[in-house]
Amino acid sequence: MNAAKSIIDMRKIRCELAEPVGFVPTMGYLHEGHLSLIRRAKEENRSVVASLFVNPTQFAPHEDFESYPRDLHHDISLLEGLGIDVIFTPSVTELYPPGFSICIELGKITKRLEGASRPTHFRGVATIVAKLFNIVQPARAYFGQKDAQQLAVIRNMVTDLNMNLEIVSVPTIREPDGLAMSSRNASLNTEQRQAAMVLYQALKLSEILWSKGEKDAEKIRQKMLSLTQQEPLARVDYISVADAETLEELETVKPPALVSIAVKIGGTRLIDNVILS
Amino acid sequence: MNAAKSIIDMRKIRCELAEPVGFVPTMGYLHEGHLSLIRRAKEENRSVVASLFVNPTQFAPHEDFESYPRDLHHDISLLEGLGIDVIFTPSVTELYPPGFSICIELGKITKRLEGASRPTHFRGVATIVAKLFNIVQPARAYFGQKDAQQLAVIRNMVTDLNMNLEIVSVPTIREPDGLAMSSRNASLNTEQRQAAMVLYQALKLSEILWSKGEKDAEKIRQKMLSLTQQEPLARVDYISVADAETLEELETVKPPALVSIAVKIGGTRLIDNVILS
Repeated sequence: MNAAKSIIDMRKIRCELAEPVGFVPTMGYLHEGHLSLIRRAKEENRSVVASLFVNPTQFAPHEDFESYPRDLHHDISLLEGLGIDVIFTPSVTELYPPGFSICIELGKITKRLEGASRPTHFRGVATIVAKLFNIVQPARAYFGQKDAQQLAVIRNMVTDLNMNLEIVSVPTIREPDGLAMSSRNASLNTEQRQAAMVLYQALKLSEILWSKGEKDAEKIRQKMLSLTQQEPLARVDYISVADAETLEELETVKPPALVSIAVKIGGTRLIDNVILS
Repeated sequence: MNAAKSIIDMRKIRCELAEPVGFVPTMGYLHEGHLSLIRRAKEENRSVVASLFVNPTQFAPHEDFESYPRDLHHDISLLEGLGIDVIFTPSVTELYPPGFSICIELGKITKRLEGASRPTHFRGVATIVAKLFNIVQPARAYFGQKDAQQLAVIRNMVTDLNMNLEIVSVPTIREPDGLAMSSRNASLNTEQRQAAMVLYQALKLSEILWSKGEKDAEKIRQKMLSLTQQEPLARVDYISVADAETLEELETVKPPALVSIAVKIGGTRLIDNVILS
């Protein structure tokens, strides 16, 4: 396995990789969700590159950039076990040198859901992902369905900027009790971890209601909200039943619909989603 | 010579081109300035692609998008004469389909000079150039020094987004009386064409003053302004003596300095520049 710590190193190694190249951009602190992306990338490509980079520009000043969990040694040992070709660990100063001034802005899709409470988040995501795509030049890049809006934003960027690669979405990996794998789960104490089950319980409820014929999106939202509010540690940020492509809130459920939820438990903000199809 | 009228055609032909590929993006209505870019691209690359596309998003609603001169047949015959490999003539609807929402924003460098009177111009330029780069995937792209700020914006974009290509600037080509070649010159009547000489006369004056030891940027601007105002058909938009990289106005000339001028003559807005080195 090659380790590329700079853009120049990455470009040099890139020239030697067998085509096609699959790419898994991550912020590190890897869990089963990331590993499933990497396994999928390995199945579908002759070479696989993973990046580990906690991107400061997608965090607002009051958010958890500093406290975002990091464990480079553990990440590297996990990636070695999977037999990927390159670990790319660029530095903040190399990706954002003095004078850096660009940003990639998308439209309405970045203002809803996560974008409503994190107005500069997707600008940061789109910009770093574009930079990494330009450095790694993959044929395919892999993203988890868990970050459904991020996936939609990146698909939009690839289409609108005519980027020459395929975006592959990979199903959410869950703990046995349904909690979606997330690096932020590590910040939960035992009680909070227990409370965090409520996100998936609420999402499951939406699937049950839909399967029983409920098409009124507001009724689904309200029932999910009631269920979530029964958990005293959970503070709901949003519960949404939206068009899966535009992310516009629906009155009547029309599949595929994205049901998504964001909840704060203690100091930790968790998100999850399911598709009604 | 191949003609690619759609993105799919361009991508297909691209796979067959000998590397490296040089790219000359243009808005058509080709003149000697464009041809010098193409000749340079031919010298330095095994294949050359030129695009002809009048990009609507870099024109504000009140600007001259509709009346911008176009002559596709003449352009194609000129390009055939130069023996390039591909002419790419995409459509507005393919590059900007319904739902298109992205834009690439740069910082201060886009707000000065041309950006001051055309606040959305460079956003449009950066976005279309990024799209064309992603479609054509050149090793080198060629731009005229005549559009000095555009060149600086594109260089910044390539650096900040880690695009894997080289930007080559090519010296301004001038008419015998010094007027910089521009597609917009075609809009000038005989009197206006005569008056348009004043741009280069003012720029030449700055070179003379500098060569004689004048380092006070404001004195240079004032003398250029006086000279330009002697031409009754010329309405000055700006006269600038700026740092060639940041485009910040200078108090004391420090080479390389960009001296640039924008003047309206009748309904036609002309720009030109020289470097004091």
